[in-house]
Amino acid sequence: MLPDRAFFDRLADAAKAETLPRFRSGLDVTDKGGQYYDPVTEGDQAAEAAICALIEAHFPDHGILGEEHGSKGLDRDYVWVIDPIDGTRAFISGVPVWGTLIGLYHKGRAIMGLIDQPFTGERYFADGTKSTYRGPGGERILKTSGCKELAKAKMFTTSPHLFEGQDEVRYRTVEKASRLFRYGTDCYAYALLAAGHVDLVVECALKPYDVGGIIPVIEQAGGVMTSWDGGRPEMGGYIIAAATPELHAEVSAILRS
Amino acid sequence: MLPDRAFFDRLADAAKAETLPRFRSGLDVTDKGGQYYDPVTEGDQAAEAAICALIEAHFPDHGILGEEHGSKGLDRDYVWVIDPIDGTRAFISGVPVWGTLIGLYHKGRAIMGLIDQPFTGERYFADGTKSTYRGPGGERILKTSGCKELAKAKMFTTSPHLFEGQDEVRYRTVEKASRLFRYGTDCYAYALLAAGHVDLVVECALKPYDVGGIIPVIEQAGGVMTSWDGGRPEMGGYIIAAATPELHAEVSAILRS
Repeated sequence: MLPDRAFFDRLADAAKAETLPRFRSGLDVTDKGGQYYDPVTEGDQAAEAAICALIEAHFPDHGILGEEHGSKGLDRDYVWVIDPIDGTRAFISGVPVWGTLIGLYHKGRAIMGLIDQPFTGERYFADGTKSTYRGPGGERILKTSGCKELAKAKMFTTSPHLFEGQDEVRYRTVEKASRLFRYGTDCYAYALLAAGHVDLVVECALKPYDVGGIIPVIEQAGGVMTSWDGGRPEMGGYIIAAATPELHAEVSAILRS
Repeated sequence: MLPDRAFFDRLADAAKAETLPRFRSGLDVTDKGGQYYDPVTEGDQAAEAAICALIEAHFPDHGILGEEHGSKGLDRDYVWVIDPIDGTRAFISGVPVWGTLIGLYHKGRAIMGLIDQPFTGERYFADGTKSTYRGPGGERILKTSGCKELAKAKMFTTSPHLFEGQDEVRYRTVEKASRLFRYGTDCYAYALLAAGHVDLVVECALKPYDVGGIIPVIEQAGGVMTSWDGGRPEMGGYIIAAATPELHAEVSAILRS
């Protein structure tokens, strides 16, 4: 039996109870190490523990891949892919573009997913067939924009500093050809793409838990999300998410060149 | 007689009635021209008209400097400095880090100011002596962080592409020495600075209406805001805003070098 929207909501609410009270609380952060500043908060760990406890209680035969606590049962048919706070730099800077990402994979394919922003009260959810927005302004079905040309596209990436060498050259080619580009939105950029406000997200160095909750929201809103070379995006890495197949084809041709 | 908080709220509410319904509405944008993509929305113009009408009705002897409709009476003792939608690129991309900026200058000095974010419901207001936050989580007095060292500072700028030549070199020196940097928050970065969530904002190419509503919020929360060479910031241009005098001194020494 698959989980329903109410169960995803319980997971998101449990995470929110751990994250939101710590947002803008002046909490100290610790450094995981590595090339980029990558803080992790108590909220990140507590939220993941809360989510995992609910999954284990209700779907004990499912696997879980989390950011903080490692993983279990990754060879099972159903695997949950969780990032309790995607955008930890946004979180510790007080900017409400971080989110809780919860995805469900079936045999390696992302089939349901949720992007939750607790401070703004926005929830973007893919139920297996369609993506829905709930938040300020009410509830509505999500649909990506009709943008088919890079020259007309609004694009996002988390930071241009993440691209190196030839990847940076390719990325900059896309950026220059776009109508408008912005940085620093983490998972929120994908939510805005699903909702039709922006047209393109290009990133690299993503982990599975950075994309697991996002893929179904993009795909079930009509978007296309793949690796730079056109493969499935479930494992993360180099990612393109585009509003239309035409825009995706134009951008992936540049990024593969 | 000076305006009170209730009057600033009326101005912000009048602007919100024009901006928020157009946010994420899929409204087309037009290009003002110039080096950077600089869209202006109907909401920008309608909000400024609504603000100006209220000021003219209640303070007919005050001057007004606006972004959209030009200006009047700039030689008067009291001049309102208004940006109805600061962060138009954020606005058209659906990211709630744009804001309505309303400042009041007395003889060239910014004495009261307001930063309003209608979607998140946040209002940052300086009444002449103190800065206050209202929004999710309630109401509280604003206080900048105690950060005194660049190496410990979280910093923001709207876009690194705005700096050119030696300015870019100086800016990059600051960015590299910071603990963490982020892009793309427009006026919202200053609100987060006043609230103690971030420690430093460095920008260039600002107009008076980009800073007029912000300066009192920063100063009356304990921060320091000047031009790169240490002068008053009321006219915009090259701007440093820092949580403490010590941090300001360290950064301005680099930017002046």
